[in-house]
Amino acid sequence: MEFDLIERIRARTTVQRADVRLGIGDDAAVLAVAGGHDLVVCTDTLVEGVHFPARTHPADLGWKALAVNLSDLAAMGATPAWATLALTLPVGDAAWVEAFAAGFDALAREHAVALVGGDTTRGPLSVTVTAHGIVPRGAALTRAGACVGDLVFVTGCLGDAAAGLACVLPGHPREAALFAAPAAQREALVARLQRPTPRVAQGMALRGLAHACIDVSDGLVADLAHVCAASGVGAEIDAARLPASSALIDLFDAPERRALQLGGGDDYELCFCVADADADAAIATLARLGGGVTAIGRIVAGGSVRVHDALGHTVAPVRSGWNHFS
Amino acid sequence: MEFDLIERIRARTTVQRADVRLGIGDDAAVLAVAGGHDLVVCTDTLVEGVHFPARTHPADLGWKALAVNLSDLAAMGATPAWATLALTLPVGDAAWVEAFAAGFDALAREHAVALVGGDTTRGPLSVTVTAHGIVPRGAALTRAGACVGDLVFVTGCLGDAAAGLACVLPGHPREAALFAAPAAQREALVARLQRPTPRVAQGMALRGLAHACIDVSDGLVADLAHVCAASGVGAEIDAARLPASSALIDLFDAPERRALQLGGGDDYELCFCVADADADAAIATLARLGGGVTAIGRIVAGGSVRVHDALGHTVAPVRSGWNHFS
Repeated sequence: MEFDLIERIRARTTVQRADVRLGIGDDAAVLAVAGGHDLVVCTDTLVEGVHFPARTHPADLGWKALAVNLSDLAAMGATPAWATLALTLPVGDAAWVEAFAAGFDALAREHAVALVGGDTTRGPLSVTVTAHGIVPRGAALTRAGACVGDLVFVTGCLGDAAAGLACVLPGHPREAALFAAPAAQREALVARLQRPTPRVAQGMALRGLAHACIDVSDGLVADLAHVCAASGVGAEIDAARLPASSALIDLFDAPERRALQLGGGDDYELCFCVADADADAAIATLARLGGGVTAIGRIVAGGSVRVHDALGHTVAPVRSGWNHFS
Repeated sequence: MEFDLIERIRARTTVQRADVRLGIGDDAAVLAVAGGHDLVVCTDTLVEGVHFPARTHPADLGWKALAVNLSDLAAMGATPAWATLALTLPVGDAAWVEAFAAGFDALAREHAVALVGGDTTRGPLSVTVTAHGIVPRGAALTRAGACVGDLVFVTGCLGDAAAGLACVLPGHPREAALFAAPAAQREALVARLQRPTPRVAQGMALRGLAHACIDVSDGLVADLAHVCAASGVGAEIDAARLPASSALIDLFDAPERRALQLGGGDDYELCFCVADADADAAIATLARLGGGVTAIGRIVAGGSVRVHDALGHTVAPVRSGWNHFS
């Protein structure tokens, strides 16, 4: 690990926590896990050209590399605490590293996440963050536990990040129309792609309320299918209820919008299942946190995710999420 | 994360632990940290062509990716517990992944390390492992704490891994002689490069005995310099005392051997500092664990690492470890 780059990263990651007994600079970090809590750990890698376009701004990449991991912690109901960073770079570009660290730190500050260790290596650009959170013992939300009759909710809006990708990647069928759209609308969608908001407070608030929870990283249908598989249930989704941002409504017609909402990845909203009796409490709790929450369907017997429109007609399957090596 | 590859990895990683409340298959792992203990976390990335040659056998790579991290835990005196794996592959080669997982698991079994999560992505070959261990609260060994007068020890032998690299990489000045050497000697050195032995038991045994500890990953002089910097001391090393394997002695003359022992990386032995009064206890404790332990010098006032030969002459500086981006 190259000393100068490490120092640049360390100097720009500003969160200090009392439970970090030893941070960056030794062979490992030493961390105090609060008594009565479980440790929650996840890891996600972003590879240039696969998970983000070449020439993505390093500050956006730093933000997103942490965000996708905090979103996994949120899906578990965990409180974020610490992260490690493995950064592989083709060249030791100090300005790039500083911008990356600044983007990482901007999100880390929002959630009091201390960077406690890492590795910098030479090679094709990729970023692996391992995030650590804590949750009261036994209180973690999982994908298992959804019950027949539960309401299915999502936070925020769906499809924006995939729409943002259409705005930045050449070759989309609607490229000309998107290019002609108001800049503010395009930028709103691109921001959702590049600076996703992990729903950390929402996940924590759902402890003891949600029967099951997942974050929407691969697309709603694909991710809800994971919940169904883990819980041994099916789900029915009402496409007309899927929440859409005003930018998505303005720039995409209804069929395009629906495809983005059902199959688009990278939104990092939470999808969760709540008993009828707890639905009002969940809605009220999440409403106080902002960002929105919408009931989109129900858990049913069976094993598949079915989507119907306002008239009850089944909506044809959409691209079922992003699958590496597919 | 591609389901089939994950399943292949999960099927071949066999360690089960009671403290894993939730392992691979959800958004994150949920882990129970024993009361009265600190969590110890480290992460290391291996990139093809930088940290290992192209066409390294996947089983060796799986072993080594875990070994380099367990070595960091060992340097902290931590007991290994859990690991996450971020694997980036150019193609989804099932046989390759199974061999990789088998190599990883072979070492994981030796230390009861459960694989609890990870990510598989498409891209140029690289592996990032994040390893988690625990240590009684406040008992972690660090690089700081070495005191003037302490004896400096190393476990095992030095220089073997760098000698092994000379055996497998074309272009070494001694290529012809190495090629002509007995296969058993070459293989012994190459095995030390490809399947390093993290000194986990030794690190745990040094809790309460060593003032400072580090693992030799970049080369003895470079790594001991980290201890000196963190502790605010210097060190004097007697080159004649550096432990050498019989293969190293047979295949390299004294100047070559010394360069490998002082500057060669990837040995993953522990280098640690012990007060005179505790030296006998440390030697006896580590002798029971096997693998050897050798006093090689003393901590002195100052800030640099000086090396002298049996006649007291200063040995010229050697390549000071591996420095990415240098």
